[in-house]
Parts: sequence; C-alpha cells; structure tokens
Amino acid sequence: MAEKRYLFTPGPTPVPPEVLAATSQPIVHHRGRDFKPIYKRCLERLAQVFRTETEVLLYTSSGTGTLEAATANLCSPGERIVVVSAGYFGERWAAIGETYGCDVDHLRYEWGENPAPNDLAARLKELGGATTVFVTQSETSTGVVADVRSLAAVAKAAGALVCVDAISSLGAVPCETDQWHLDVVVSGSQKALMTPPGLAMTTVSDAAWKARERATLPRYYFDWERTRDAQRKLDAAFTPAVSIVIGLDVALGLLLERGLDAAFDHHIRLGRACREGVKAMGLELFSPDEDSSAVVTAVRMPEGIDADELLLDLRDRFGITFAPGQGPLKGRILRIGHIGFFDVFDITTALAGLELGLTEAGADVERGVAVTRALETYERAPA
Amino acid sequence: MAEKRYLFTPGPTPVPPEVLAATSQPIVHHRGRDFKPIYKRCLERLAQVFRTETEVLLYTSSGTGTLEAATANLCSPGERIVVVSAGYFGERWAAIGETYGCDVDHLRYEWGENPAPNDLAARLKELGGATTVFVTQSETSTGVVADVRSLAAVAKAAGALVCVDAISSLGAVPCETDQWHLDVVVSGSQKALMTPPGLAMTTVSDAAWKARERATLPRYYFDWERTRDAQRKLDAAFTPAVSIVIGLDVALGLLLERGLDAAFDHHIRLGRACREGVKAMGLELFSPDEDSSAVVTAVRMPEGIDADELLLDLRDRFGITFAPGQGPLKGRILRIGHIGFFDVFDITTALAGLELGLTEAGADVERGVAVTRALETYERAPA
Repeated sequence: MAEKRYLFTPGPTPVPPEVLAATSQPIVHHRGRDFKPIYKRCLERLAQVFRTETEVLLYTSSGTGTLEAATANLCSPGERIVVVSAGYFGERWAAIGETYGCDVDHLRYEWGENPAPNDLAARLKELGGATTVFVTQSETSTGVVADVRSLAAVAKAAGALVCVDAISSLGAVPCETDQWHLDVVVSGSQKALMTPPGLAMTTVSDAAWKARERATLPRYYFDWERTRDAQRKLDAAFTPAVSIVIGLDVALGLLLERGLDAAFDHHIRLGRACREGVKAMGLELFSPDEDSSAVVTAVRMPEGIDADELLLDLRDRFGITFAPGQGPLKGRILRIGHIGFFDVFDITTALAGLELGLTEAGADVERGVAVTRALETYERAPA
Repeated sequence: MAEKRYLFTPGPTPVPPEVLAATSQPIVHHRGRDFKPIYKRCLERLAQVFRTETEVLLYTSSGTGTLEAATANLCSPGERIVVVSAGYFGERWAAIGETYGCDVDHLRYEWGENPAPNDLAARLKELGGATTVFVTQSETSTGVVADVRSLAAVAKAAGALVCVDAISSLGAVPCETDQWHLDVVVSGSQKALMTPPGLAMTTVSDAAWKARERATLPRYYFDWERTRDAQRKLDAAFTPAVSIVIGLDVALGLLLERGLDAAFDHHIRLGRACREGVKAMGLELFSPDEDSSAVVTAVRMPEGIDADELLLDLRDRFGITFAPGQGPLKGRILRIGHIGFFDVFDITTALAGLELGLTEAGADVERGVAVTRALETYERAPA
C-alpha cells in the first residue's frame, strides 16, 4: 500500500489541517461559554454561505437526514409532491417521499441528463400543481449541476414550495437561497465546506414554516421547530457533535475570508482544468463539458477498462482515491471530486495518476499532455 | 476566565488524548481500505461492550436519534406501548411515542424515584399487555440507575418487547443485552464510551426484527434494515462521521483492554467516592446512595444557594463545568458526571471546587474533609 493518500472523492473531501486540529481540541460542553460563541459564529457563517437572512438549522447527521427533514416537516400522507431526478441522489429524495406515503410524481431523467425547466413547467401544468418540488443542485453521481434558479422559478410560478439538495454544491457553485426564493436548501459538512462528515444543515423560508404548520407527518429528531427554538437560545435540541461544529466554524472562516465569489471562480477553474486534462488524454467526459460542472468530473472508461478495477489499483498502489460509478454507471465511469480544500495540483495529481493507471491497464491514452493542459486551463480566468 | 478546564458533566465527557488525536487524522473515505478494517473492528468492539452476539447498528446522530429509531422501527400508529419514566430522558421517550401517534401508557414516576418492577407488572396486567416497554437505565437527570434486568424480566413475562435507553450507562454499569433478553439497547458515543458526540448505536434482537416487519411507522434515515444491510457489506447507508468512528474504535479498545468488569468496578468506586465526599461536606444527596448510582451524582443545594448561579461561578472562575438541574430540579440540584475517562482525582477536584464555591457563596459546609473521604472510599473494593 502506498504511503501517501490523495482523497479525490466528492465527499468526504480533504480537510484543511487547521480544521482537523480544531476538531481535536479537548471536548467542551455544548451549553457552556467555551462553545456558545463558536456556535453562534458558526450559525452566522452558515447563513452567509447559504446567502440567507433566515436561520440555518444545524443537525448532527449525514446530509440525508436533512433531506428527510424537509419531507417530514413539509408534507402529509397522500400529498402530491414532485421530485425532479437525474441520478442517484435525486432518486433518494423520491424514495424518502414514497417511504413517507406522499403521492410522489417523479420527473425522472436518465442519469447524466440535465433537468429542463420547461419539462418541470409542463409537468406542473399537467398535474394542476403540486405543494412542493424537490430538486438536486449538484447530482454527485453524474457531475451534472442543475439550473436550480430556473427550476425554482418555474416551481414558484406554479405556486409550489422548492426544496434543494445542495449537499455537494454549497460553497462550490452559487446557491442564492433568498434571492432565488428557495424555500429549503440542505447541505452537509463533508463536501465543499471542508469539514469532516457528521453535520447537516437546512434553511427554511417563511413560506416553508407556514407549510410546516399543516404538515402531519411525524418527526422528532429532525423536527425543525425543536431545533430552531433551541438555537434561538444558543442551545441545541440534542447534544451536537461539538468537535465537528468547532471544525466547521474554522472551515467556514477560511471560506468566507477568501470570499464566496472567489471560491466559485476557483471551482469553475478546477472543473475546467480537470475536463480539459481528461480530454487531452483522449478520454470521454460523462459530465457535461460546461462551467457548471464545477463539483465533480465523471469520466467514461475506454473500451475494455473496468472503472472499479482501475480504482482499486490506483488506491492500492498510489493511495489515490477516486469515486466509482453508482447504479447503472458502475464500472463504466469514475468520478473525480474537486470541491473544498482542493487546488490545481490536486487536479494534476489526479490526472497523472489516471494517465498512469490507464496506460498500465492497457488503454490507449495520450501521454504527457493532460497535466500541462490542466495547468494552462486553470490559469485562464472564467469568461 | 480560568486557564484550565474540568469537564464534569455526564455527557459530553472528557475524551482521552489518544482518542482526540485519532479523530484529527486526515479524512479517509468510508468505502476505502483505510477505513473498513477500523469500521469492522469498531462494530465488533461495540458488540462486546453491548454484550451481544447480534449486530450493533451505528448511526451518525445524537443518542435521541436511536431512541426515535426504536419507536419508528417497532411501532404502528395507535399501538399500545408502555413508557416507564422517572426523569427528563424517560419522558423524552414518551414524547417520541406520542409524536408518532402511539397509544402511550406512561408509567410516570416523580423525578428521582426508582421505577419498581412490581409497578410495571401491575400496570401490564391491568392493561392486558402491551407490545413494547421502553425503559431508561441511567436517568441522567437524577442519577438514578434503574434495575433494567428486573424491569425487562417483568416486561418479557407479559409478552412485551423491551427497549432500553443505555445512553449514559453503557460501559459504566452492567447492561447484559443478550443475557437479560433486551430487545433494543441504544447508546451514544459521548458518555462512558469516551468519544466526542456524533455517533449513536442500537442493538436489535431477533424478536425486534420480527416486530419491525409489522411496524408501519415511516422511517428512512433511522431505518434499521437499511443500516444493517449496508453494514453487512462493511458499508454505511449514509456517509458516517468517519473521524468519530475512528476515535470510537480507539476508545473502545482502551475500554476493552482494561476490561468491562474493571470499568464497572471503577465506576462503582467513583460513585461511592463522590457521594461520600458530598456527604462529608454536610450536603444532601439527590441521587440514591447506592452502588448503582455510578454514572452521575446529583447534589441538593443548601438553603439559599441557587445551583445555576454556583455553576456559572465555578465555570467562570475555575473552569469547572458541572451539569445543572433540569425541569423541576432547575436551580435546586447540580449534577456531577463521573463516567468514561474519569479517575478519583477528577472526583477530588470536583469536590474541592464544590467546597470552595459553596463556602464563598455563604453556605455552611464542612471544610477539609471531602477530598480525603473520597480518596479513602475509592480505595475500598466494592463488596
């Protein structure tokens, strides 16, 4: 096994050393003054990152917990909802709705397609509306970043609430919670927020709070009100993962110090550099070759190469971890995450490892061009 | 503010330095070979600590998440369940049952009382049985440790399943999951398991798995089957808090190396030392003066002393954090947690701080005896 490690997955992602150091401080009590100022600042920083004036609710769970929270707090059994999906994570939100007995109208695209706002408008018209529309901003399984702003506008025009899965996208691509009138936006600590996994967050608009009053689905741990009421007293409804909150505060400080717009620009460049490098090798992209693909780059395997075997080889020999294809894409693609604590030399390492692994596996790839192409591409400012 | 910190709360609790160090290692992917052997060992060690041959399910959440999981996986709306409570945390399980629309028969004791197995037997007879009985082993709000073994025997004799909240007790006092035929036992990382908060666990007996098949309440994140099926492939249903799992594995290694029986003996001695020291000062115990009170010692405040004011004073001047009274006990008691990474000198520091704080607040306490009494008491082996 290789000595060094390179984590190139779209979650968990690499965490800055100062964040790791913060998480290893002696444990403090969540109701004491060693914690409360950090907690307060962390919640305020979260609101800045979500671009919202509303309160961000913080949960100790993986991101899926806050996906479930949206359904459980907004819906009632038999209620008509629309889920827009084009991959693994979009389908998860549909599965949650079905588990809770909602009448899920599933606007389902092939994995890798990008949902079209016009399709959503047509579907909502056909249905005569829906109470809530659930969309995925960054479909981590395919690399597609949906046009959430337009999808939300269509849904709002039809009188629906809009819930957005921004788990892998928040902090990497723009997500204007208030300006785009998004009712619920959920995210997690372990993606572009550069923090270990363990925390998930959600925004809740005024309209969503009103809808919650009518929603009859049961919820306790993920009940929004219980968490909001505690947070308003700078308390937590349940013992939070204090060490990860302390780490998240440091990570958000790093992100905001650099500036969100700079982070978005950086991620566009990372995505471009990765895609150009992949193409220079003669490989085909599965992710759209667009600036929006700034979270993860999915790469089709050449004829005769099994992605999963290649992944194990790269991991064992070089300590490089890529993400495999999920569901119907298993073995056919590999995914390179490039969010959070990531720079262009992570891209060049990823490309160099991929070039070497594919060559040794017998694939016919162009040698010696990907790294330079990536470096050159990164240097060019986004249009 | 004092420079040093002394965390004497019953959760979060102090964490050994090697556990903190383990949690701050660079993040690894939860599906990679850097994590899987640790994950496997951690799950095996958990089963040893729970004293069960069944699989322990691991969740990223606070302990309450796995309390809710028990209800959501076992029950259906309108189903008759019995919740035995004698404090804050017992009442929480009743609240969860009510939230989920169960027909909750609440065998409710005053805070500080110890539930009597005969009462439960009589109630179950009167009701003509119940599907499930929920009990709290260590009622952290009062210091009472219930006789779970006898309560469970009564419930099983009446044909009910038994769910046990062992959140603050697991690893501190005996909890024989298999031998006592406990169907569900839930716990959390941040108590006697000496790990930062963020993880919760649950056991599920064969009978509970069978009951789950009939249970119609909705659950997704906390669905047992989804987590079990993933764990059987050494996978996780949702991205786990990897850094805390790695810390938990180290902490469980420390606990098991010393031996569970040694840990139980140690906690009995710590509890005795704390209670004897408190009494030597002339203070009254709120916790029962019994060996079972090995988790937390609740102390009544002398006339004219407000516990919450004393707590703030001790925290700000000396960095000593005790836990306040909850609910009806607010201001009337303070609680000294002594679980996990705790030794007799933590007890003497707690007592010395309490003696000083009370004296300065004008209380008439016996000076200079508590520490020595605690040390002497700790040295005597449990009967």
